[in-house]
Amino acid sequence: MKTQREKMTDGEPYQQFDPELIERRTFIRHKLIGINQLDDNEQRNQKVKELFAQTGKDFFVEGGLEFDYGFNIHIGDHFYANYHLTLLDTCPITIGSHCYIGPDVGFYTPVHPLSAKKRDADVELGKPISVGNSVWMGGHVTILPGVTLGDRVVVGAGSVVTKSFGDDVVIAGNPARIIHHLDENGDVIPGD
Amino acid sequence: MKTQREKMTDGEPYQQFDPELIERRTFIRHKLIGINQLDDNEQRNQKVKELFAQTGKDFFVEGGLEFDYGFNIHIGDHFYANYHLTLLDTCPITIGSHCYIGPDVGFYTPVHPLSAKKRDADVELGKPISVGNSVWMGGHVTILPGVTLGDRVVVGAGSVVTKSFGDDVVIAGNPARIIHHLDENGDVIPGD
Amino acid sequence: MKTQREKMTDGEPYQQFDPELIERRTFIRHKLIGINQLDDNEQRNQKVKELFAQTGKDFFVEGGLEFDYGFNIHIGDHFYANYHLTLLDTCPITIGSHCYIGPDVGFYTPVHPLSAKKRDADVELGKPISVGNSVWMGGHVTILPGVTLGDRVVVGAGSVVTKSFGDDVVIAGNPARIIHHLDENGDVIPGD
Repeated sequence: MKTQREKMTDGEPYQQFDPELIERRTFIRHKLIGINQLDDNEQRNQKVKELFAQTGKDFFVEGGLEFDYGFNIHIGDHFYANYHLTLLDTCPITIGSHCYIGPDVGFYTPVHPLSAKKRDADVELGKPISVGNSVWMGGHVTILPGVTLGDRVVVGAGSVVTKSFGDDVVIAGNPARIIHHLDENGDVIPGD
Repeated sequence: MKTQREKMTDGEPYQQFDPELIERRTFIRHKLIGINQLDDNEQRNQKVKELFAQTGKDFFVEGGLEFDYGFNIHIGDHFYANYHLTLLDTCPITIGSHCYIGPDVGFYTPVHPLSAKKRDADVELGKPISVGNSVWMGGHVTILPGVTLGDRVVVGAGSVVTKSFGDDVVIAGNPARIIHHLDENGDVIPGD
Repeated sequence: MKTQREKMTDGEPYQQFDPELIERRTFIRHKLIGINQLDDNEQRNQKVKELFAQTGKDFFVEGGLEFDYGFNIHIGDHFYANYHLTLLDTCPITIGSHCYIGPDVGFYTPVHPLSAKKRDADVELGKPISVGNSVWMGGHVTILPGVTLGDRVVVGAGSVVTKSFGDDVVIAGNPARIIHHLDENGDVIPGD
């Protein structure tokens, strides 16, 4: 039988008041208050790495970081995230290598039912988020549950990404739409 | 004769440099610096409850909370707000029961004049914000002065809510528009 | 020959791992952790003023302030910025007099290449941002690299400002567009 943590990670309805989950969230909050006060980059990043499921070489996050569990966060090499990254990691958040994230970006995996009756009954579930390699996101970007982004995607600042996109596109807006296709050199395809 | 606090709360032009208002803002800033460092949920939520005009059962706010006065904030039972909720409560902010708020959401009641001359003269006023029962807001949502939302409204992540909406709708976008009507079970009405 | 700091400020490609720039960023991070804990307004604002290139009379920023260098930030008299202003000041950020900024606003001067190959090689550059006098920005606003705003501009809450605008306009949306022209009294021009 699955634990609540396993159900949650797999995107099935789960009990958010499960003792194991509450204990982990409390532990993470406690850790983050200390971590976000550390101005020594090496110390701060080392402590974050210890709480994430997977990180790689050249890992760097600025202060103001928030996340719920950490055990569902998987990040590749050469990662940089600016101030106040928020990762709601009910379900897995997977980010490739060479990704850069602007300030005040939110990755939200939790999903609540549209039905108020179900929400009032505390039904909660989620969908994973996956980001390819060499992706750059501007600041104030919002990534919704279930979104997958391909390789070399550029996400304009302030975008609200409500659906998935493939490789080699520039997306922007609310909701985010493709504004450019990129060729193999990363140049905008003319007439696009 | 009305005090500046009463004028402000009633949405009339007021003097923001009024000593009573300055003292309260300074007191709240001082309290919030301490509150936002508390990782004990019960302690943190209890201290916030003491500063709000009204709260109910099952009150929970995560860290990073910001507000100006507190005496204009009225919240029903079963409230949950994620990281970094910002409530600019020049005028009353009233939120019903069973409301869930995502991270980095802002409720802004202050209004400045469109005329630069009047702004330069420090004229300030505001309009109240009111939210019904069983409302769910995603992250990165902005609620403007004067907005009223009905019961069972769902506000998509990243929405900028510039006007009022009635019951049983899903709104999203910048500016937010109705994207779905919900039936009495909370299901999306077909053909909508 | 230009230093990396000079190249960066002038908007030319530069080495972000330059020792002088790393040292400054580390120094600022250290300072900001202390500054953002100060609830004494006079103390907090005085310490911020010491780190900016230029400030004037009546300078006020709330807590949660973030910036990278400070030496590229130039601000006029009568400035007020609400909670959690983020200024990425790779290039100059110049703000006139009598400007008011809502909460959670970001000014971003850094530019990364659209080409993933170039980004992966850590090429970084930027473009300056300039804001006129008597400008009011709502909360959750994003200002992109290279943007210039004229005098008496009003920027609606939640706007993503991707291009420049002249004097006496109200802009809003993602991307921000002109929604009103203002006359010399600051009134909306009829039929607009």
